Amino acid sequence: MQTIGIITKHKNQRSLEIGMKLCAWLKERQLFVLCEKELATKLKLEEQSKARISEQADLIVVLGGDGTLLSIARHIKRSDLPILGVNLGGLGFLTAITLNELFIVMTEVLGGHFSLSPRMVLKVSCYRRNQPVSNYNVLNDVVINKGAMARIIELKTVIDDNFVNTFKADGLIFSTPTGSTGYSLSAGGPIVYPTLNSITVAPICPHTLSNRPLIVPSEVTIETTLASTGNDDVFLTLDGQVGFSMQPLDKVTITRASHDIKLVASPSKTYFEVLRNKLKWGERYQNSFQ
Amino acid sequence: MQTIGIITKHKNQRSLEIGMKLCAWLKERQLFVLCEKELATKLKLEEQSKARISEQADLIVVLGGDGTLLSIARHIKRSDLPILGVNLGGLGFLTAITLNELFIVMTEVLGGHFSLSPRMVLKVSCYRRNQPVSNYNVLNDVVINKGAMARIIELKTVIDDNFVNTFKADGLIFSTPTGSTGYSLSAGGPIVYPTLNSITVAPICPHTLSNRPLIVPSEVTIETTLASTGNDDVFLTLDGQVGFSMQPLDKVTITRASHDIKLVASPSKTYFEVLRNKLKWGERYQNSFQ
Amino acid sequence: MQTIGIITKHKNQRSLEIGMKLCAWLKERQLFVLCEKELATKLKLEEQSKARISEQADLIVVLGGDGTLLSIARHIKRSDLPILGVNLGGLGFLTAITLNELFIVMTEVLGGHFSLSPRMVLKVSCYRRNQPVSNYNVLNDVVINKGAMARIIELKTVIDDNFVNTFKADGLIFSTPTGSTGYSLSAGGPIVYPTLNSITVAPICPHTLSNRPLIVPSEVTIETTLASTGNDDVFLTLDGQVGFSMQPLDKVTITRASHDIKLVASPSKTYFEVLRNKLKWGERYQNSFQ
Amino acid sequence: MQTIGIITKHKNQRSLEIGMKLCAWLKERQLFVLCEKELATKLKLEEQSKARISEQADLIVVLGGDGTLLSIARHIKRSDLPILGVNLGGLGFLTAITLNELFIVMTEVLGGHFSLSPRMVLKVSCYRRNQPVSNYNVLNDVVINKGAMARIIELKTVIDDNFVNTFKADGLIFSTPTGSTGYSLSAGGPIVYPTLNSITVAPICPHTLSNRPLIVPSEVTIETTLASTGNDDVFLTLDGQVGFSMQPLDKVTITRASHDIKLVASPSKTYFEVLRNKLKWGERYQNSFQ
Repeated sequence: MQTIGIITKHKNQRSLEIGMKLCAWLKERQLFVLCEKELATKLKLEEQSKARISEQADLIVVLGGDGTLLSIARHIKRSDLPILGVNLGGLGFLTAITLNELFIVMTEVLGGHFSLSPRMVLKVSCYRRNQPVSNYNVLNDVVINKGAMARIIELKTVIDDNFVNTFKADGLIFSTPTGSTGYSLSAGGPIVYPTLNSITVAPICPHTLSNRPLIVPSEVTIETTLASTGNDDVFLTLDGQVGFSMQPLDKVTITRASHDIKLVASPSKTYFEVLRNKLKWGERYQNSFQ
Repeated sequence: MQTIGIITKHKNQRSLEIGMKLCAWLKERQLFVLCEKELATKLKLEEQSKARISEQADLIVVLGGDGTLLSIARHIKRSDLPILGVNLGGLGFLTAITLNELFIVMTEVLGGHFSLSPRMVLKVSCYRRNQPVSNYNVLNDVVINKGAMARIIELKTVIDDNFVNTFKADGLIFSTPTGSTGYSLSAGGPIVYPTLNSITVAPICPHTLSNRPLIVPSEVTIETTLASTGNDDVFLTLDGQVGFSMQPLDKVTITRASHDIKLVASPSKTYFEVLRNKLKWGERYQNSFQ
Repeated sequence: MQTIGIITKHKNQRSLEIGMKLCAWLKERQLFVLCEKELATKLKLEEQSKARISEQADLIVVLGGDGTLLSIARHIKRSDLPILGVNLGGLGFLTAITLNELFIVMTEVLGGHFSLSPRMVLKVSCYRRNQPVSNYNVLNDVVINKGAMARIIELKTVIDDNFVNTFKADGLIFSTPTGSTGYSLSAGGPIVYPTLNSITVAPICPHTLSNRPLIVPSEVTIETTLASTGNDDVFLTLDGQVGFSMQPLDKVTITRASHDIKLVASPSKTYFEVLRNKLKWGERYQNSFQ
Repeated sequence: MQTIGIITKHKNQRSLEIGMKLCAWLKERQLFVLCEKELATKLKLEEQSKARISEQADLIVVLGGDGTLLSIARHIKRSDLPILGVNLGGLGFLTAITLNELFIVMTEVLGGHFSLSPRMVLKVSCYRRNQPVSNYNVLNDVVINKGAMARIIELKTVIDDNFVNTFKADGLIFSTPTGSTGYSLSAGGPIVYPTLNSITVAPICPHTLSNRPLIVPSEVTIETTLASTGNDDVFLTLDGQVGFSMQPLDKVTITRASHDIKLVASPSKTYFEVLRNKLKWGERYQNSFQ
């Protein structure tokens, strides 16, 4: 590893300071750093785009939270780029390495002593009158949902050319296993182990109570078409961060991307340990029937 | 009963035709009819506003679905006005009288042979910098929810001056028992018997999984303040029909209105019968563990 | 107040020791103590039954957890008997006073400075061939459920002579507002504010997914009959503590008891404070869509 | 195909009659029939055990419901044995061929014109003091649950030697994708597409509300140990049909079996079509917020 990308949390002073320390530490080891404008200005380095960092780096270190990691993950189109997520406040599902562990883990990683947790990515395309109008990758989820003033929307969903259902709901979430502990969980979806090759389709507040979350193999092609209700207040959102307005009869196609995102695994915590911590399973609620 | 208000479904030909028949039937019985523009034009009557019909009528007949009934209910501010809801397609929770039963039930009602199902109403006020900016009545529910592109919102909720929780969610539903089978049910709320003096507070896709729906007595005052996140994509929606944009720090106050809406009860069906029909309890799903 | 009942946790040394201290403290104040065998032996007092303590005492102090309080509550048939629940480990829904607060609160209570939280009670009768075979009071819940080896059971449920549904499920929970944070919550029921005059009917793992929890006014009479499936592995359980075997065609009748249980309210915590603490709302799970 | 096993529904006259017709039809085509006692008596054939039919047949035809199919599936230890499930009343998830289609589909199958839907099987072992005490295969699910009079049970669960959680609940369901529409669905689990290589772990009425269903890859080894609570009222149930009593500290081990069950696919209905029919998605509940 020669070139290390550092991604800091946007407009976050603490993240910048740690980024500067990490950069100094890397320079001592004769390593080359790539970073975005905020950190680059501080370090008097040339600023780089997320796209370029994703192409050039041999390792990316994220200093922030899960949101910061998601924001860079969308730009990565390679399966051979390790991402080390360091959480600056507590613990994240994607950023399971704490600040205390940063330099210890960095030393291990540079010495080649680390394991990777591969995470599948979803490829999303939106078609308008059969023309592709946008293409995205997501690590967590793709959400089609109605605006606040919109009425219930209808989403005709087809999997591998088999009609599934016309969901009448506030929206639909298409989630990777990684995203299963995000919005999908709030909408009633299950927890999916990160390496299961699957996509979760979870309706948001469905009209029909038996419209329960559906888990399908990741090899399928999912197509969802927005009904022609004249409703112009529907949005497609990627990883909860980027989105655009959908029009009636727009079709969204979801498949698994050909590359995976490779997270550097926490050397000290299993997936279940992070889960217990985040979902407060350890300090469990003692309800009154005992 | 001398003056009968007829409310037809907006832009619905069938509803208009039945309205014309009903009007003729009422005229034969020397009764006076009040109606809105669409029907009035057909009948060559003077058009009336919903507000005026609500004030002047001795009985209101709704020809449409639950949505049509909700649209007039918001204008009623009296406890002594029976509403007869006739469903033109199937069966509604609020419109439990079918078209076949219309004239039979009308005859009974005009003869004084009917019973009323009183339904509590919620009074909603929105305050901006401590000044009231709007006031509404709802028969079903008040919803605060985020727009499609907004991030999770925070709603600080206080009941009778006791802090309840700062809900992090897509939104909050405040529902009457009547509204419990509507949006609240889709969001995970319970079915509440119509005469129970209660308000359901149901979070929409809450971040914290133990934030379950809460049922409180209808005598309380609920105050919910939108956190100052700079998020300008949050809406207050009344009965899923009318709404307006909320600003950070806006406070919504919810209490029970002093009047009730009085629905003419179906002479042939109990509440539970309608429930079983609408929720398909009768033709029950046979799952595979039998 | 002259006569104080002390209820200790069964076979719990710590509870006995605190009971002895409390007894000494009460004797200094010339008050008379009533207690059960375990504590009575230690104190060389005459042992009393729960029934007798419930009749004779002017105040009952419970030293244990919610289970200990439920065990005495079933014996109380008066609305004028305050119960002070002291939790010996953490915090309970019913025992919201901590050990640290015990003597401070006792001083306040004996001085007449306290407020009471009235809690409705359910009266349960079981009929076999139209003959009553048992009668109980419960503060939390009545549960009809199948044994582990039994197949799904069918429970025909009628409210005030109106047929509701034949539930096909693992069982049914009938809960007071107080019991809403117990087993009912685990089965998908809502949180019900303690003073709401209501009964929650929550199916356990219902076959039909739209069989959602139902909240009815506390004035109703609920009758549930076990179908004649020949299944002899069905039980009626009271407050999760006492139970007996049901036979096919047995009918369980549930109404509100004529008396309430009066809990001494915590002087330092509101209901919502206890709720936030027990359900971990305060230290909320940060899921990954932020 | 030379030898056809016919499995009829136990003590069901109609199933027997159809079995006799099918047998005559097969004999006309010079095929050999294997069947159990009830049908064998009618046909004056030698009776066979389920185990023997599973070993000897080239095809098994089930005449009954999903339960009848599950009862034979447990005995099958080969991946090369097609099972044709014919539902005698309506439609089943596993028996998606209707009686009307029986002879048409049989003709197709005997002509080699059919496709198979492979279904993974779970292998379950129970260990007592480290000695295996029982071994089973299940097509739907393995359930550990408490008896009606038992208190909440604790189940320490480990996956591939990583501690997951000690579930405090009424029980745990371990389900195949095939079983996901059975008991697991009633307990809050998702719908899992039949070919996804996964196991669903769904807690029944968990004490901790964030203990949501978990989906793991089918390659894992799941171990669950019953805590030493002295509770002797806990059972292990296989496909809801067979079970035995568990003792404290008993350990249940679950892995994927090396063989699959091969269902003859319905020539006329997709998986989603059956799903929509069984879960009533088509005739959807119109709730009142529209």
